[in-house]
Amino acid sequence: MDMPRIAFEELWETIRSAFERAGMRPDKAAACARIHAESSLDGVNSHGLNRVERFIDYIHRRWVDVDAEAVPVQSLGALEIWDGNLGPGVLNAVRAMERATELAKRDGMAILALRNTTHWMRGGTYGWQAAEAGCMAICWTNTESCMPAWGARSECIGNNPFIVAVPRKDGHLVLDMAMSQYSYGRLQVTRLKGERLPYPGGFDAEGELTDDPAAIEATRRILPTGFWKGSGMAVMLDLVAAILSGGRTTAEVDRLGKGSCGSCCQVFMAFDPQRHHSAEYIREAVEGTVRQLHAAVPAHEGNAVRYPGERTLLTRAENLKKGIPVDKGVWEAVRGLAGLSPA
Amino acid sequence: MDMPRIAFEELWETIRSAFERAGMRPDKAAACARIHAESSLDGVNSHGLNRVERFIDYIHRRWVDVDAEAVPVQSLGALEIWDGNLGPGVLNAVRAMERATELAKRDGMAILALRNTTHWMRGGTYGWQAAEAGCMAICWTNTESCMPAWGARSECIGNNPFIVAVPRKDGHLVLDMAMSQYSYGRLQVTRLKGERLPYPGGFDAEGELTDDPAAIEATRRILPTGFWKGSGMAVMLDLVAAILSGGRTTAEVDRLGKGSCGSCCQVFMAFDPQRHHSAEYIREAVEGTVRQLHAAVPAHEGNAVRYPGERTLLTRAENLKKGIPVDKGVWEAVRGLAGLSPA
Repeated sequence: MDMPRIAFEELWETIRSAFERAGMRPDKAAACARIHAESSLDGVNSHGLNRVERFIDYIHRRWVDVDAEAVPVQSLGALEIWDGNLGPGVLNAVRAMERATELAKRDGMAILALRNTTHWMRGGTYGWQAAEAGCMAICWTNTESCMPAWGARSECIGNNPFIVAVPRKDGHLVLDMAMSQYSYGRLQVTRLKGERLPYPGGFDAEGELTDDPAAIEATRRILPTGFWKGSGMAVMLDLVAAILSGGRTTAEVDRLGKGSCGSCCQVFMAFDPQRHHSAEYIREAVEGTVRQLHAAVPAHEGNAVRYPGERTLLTRAENLKKGIPVDKGVWEAVRGLAGLSPA
Repeated sequence: MDMPRIAFEELWETIRSAFERAGMRPDKAAACARIHAESSLDGVNSHGLNRVERFIDYIHRRWVDVDAEAVPVQSLGALEIWDGNLGPGVLNAVRAMERATELAKRDGMAILALRNTTHWMRGGTYGWQAAEAGCMAICWTNTESCMPAWGARSECIGNNPFIVAVPRKDGHLVLDMAMSQYSYGRLQVTRLKGERLPYPGGFDAEGELTDDPAAIEATRRILPTGFWKGSGMAVMLDLVAAILSGGRTTAEVDRLGKGSCGSCCQVFMAFDPQRHHSAEYIREAVEGTVRQLHAAVPAHEGNAVRYPGERTLLTRAENLKKGIPVDKGVWEAVRGLAGLSPA
C-alpha cells in the first residue's frame, strides 16, 4: 500500500483544523488533535488519524457534545466519581488521569471513576500520560458489545481495553491490551494486504477458528484473547467500571445506541510509589525486570525480547524522524475536513 | 482414572491433621486446611488437596515459617503496606483481604499491598472471600519465573494470577486467571488421561505451537494467554505488585530460590460500592449483565453462555452433594501425613 509519511506537526495541525471546523473550541481542538496525532505517531492510526472522520460524524450526530466537560460528582476517600457529560472522550480521559495523578502525588494513590463519557480512542494514551507524570497507573474502559463472549455466537461483551503503566527514565513500560485478540482495524489492514493473521483471530461461517481476516469480518465472531480468559476479564472489567462510577454497563450502553462507546465508563488508578519507597528501590525493581527480559533466550535468534511499550518507543522514534506513515485516502479525507485542497 | 469422592468435612479434617502434625498451631492449621479443602470442593485440586504435600515440604525446608504472621508496616491514605514475614501464604492472604474489605466498608475502597509472603494457593479464594463480605475486589500475585515471555525460549516471567470479584446474591461473579493459557497441573492431568489440550498450550522441541501436553512439559515453554498479551500483563502485574508493596519482583524472587512464590508480593483491592450507589442500581447493573450473557446465542446449541464463576458454583454444588473427587494416590499420601492408616 502507498503510505506517504507526514511530519508530526503537520498531522497535528491538520487534525486540529478539522476539529475546529467541526465546532470544537480552539484549545480543545488542539488538545484533542494532539492525542490523535500522538496515537498515529506511535503506530496506532486506527485510533489516531483514521478515527478523525468518525469522531466528527459523532459530533454532527450529537453523540458527542463538543462543549461538555467532565465534572466531579462524588468523592469518598481515595475514590472520586466524575460525570463525563458525553463530552469528547479523549479530553475527559486526559482530565481524569490528570486528576488521578494529582491526587496520587498528594496521597500516594487515587482512583477516579468516570461515567457517561465517550470513546477515549487509544487507551495507551492515558498510561503514557501517567508515566510521564511519574506515576504508575491502571486504567480501563467498557465499550458497547463488539465481541461474542466465550461460548457465544452473538456479540454480547465489550473488548474493554486495559492499560498498565510503570514510569521509567529510559522509556516507560506501558501495556495496552484490548480483550479481543485482534481489533477490527487489524483485521482490515491484514485483509487489505492480502495476508493471514499470525494466529487465529476468530471464527468462520462454519464455526471453526480461522486466521482469515475476511472470514472473521463476515461472521463478526472475533476471538477473545486467551479464549475464555479475555472473555471473562471483559465481563468483570465492565462491571467494575460501571459500578464504581455509577454508570452504564456494556448491556446498557448497547441499549442507548449512541455509537461506539457512547456513555461508557472508565476507571483511572494512579500510584505515586515514591511516597512509600525510595527512588533507588523503585529503579532497581524496574531495571532488574527489564534486564531479565532482555537477557532471556530469544525464541528466534536475533529477535530481542521486549518489555511492554518498547516497540512503541522504537516506532515513535522512527516516525518522529521519518514522518508518520498514513493511508493516502484517509489523509486526503481529513485534509478535506480541515478545509485543505488535495495534497 | 479412579477418583474416589470424599466428603468436604472429611477432606478438611484430614488436611487439618496433616498441617497440625507438620507444626502448625491448631487454629492456623484449621483455617489453612479449610482453604485447601474449599479449593478442592470448587474443582481446583491442583491448589487444594494436591498441594498439601508440597506445602508441608516447604514448612520442613523452612521456606514457610508456620508461626509468622503478616503485619502492617506503612499506611498512606487508602493504601496499606504489609509484610508477610514468609508466613503461610494462605493465612497472610486471607488476613490481607479481610483487612482490605474492612477498610473498604469504612472508606469505600482500600488497597493492601503485601510483600514477603508465600504461595497463596488458589487466587480465586480471595475473590470469593471479598464477594462473601459484600465487596468488589481485584487482587493478584507475582510468582517466580515459570513461563517464557513472548518471544523468549527461557522462563523469565511469572504466571501471576489475576482475580476480579463482584458480589451477587444468587451467586458471585469471580474471575480467576493465570497469565499462562494452561497450568502445569492442567498439562499433567491431560497427559495422564491420554488426551490433547483443547487449544495449543505451548511450544514443542521444534518451536512449534502444540496441543500435546507432554511435549510442552518437556520444553517448559508454556504459552502466555493471548500470546503477547498475557506475557505483557504478567510483566506489568509483577512490577505493580512489587513496587506497591516494596517487595521483590519475579526476577528477585528467582534469585532467592525459596520455592514456588517464596517471598512474593500481592495486591488486594476492595471496594464497597454501596458506599456510593444504591443497592438497586448495583443489583440491576449485575443482573442486566448476567441476563445479557445468558441471552446470547450459544456457539454450540444447548451449551449456555456462563458468567465468570458460574461453572465453579455448579461444581461446588455437585461436590457438596456427591463428595469431592480426589486422586487416590494423593489422598492416601495426605492421609499418611495426617497419621491415618490407608483407607
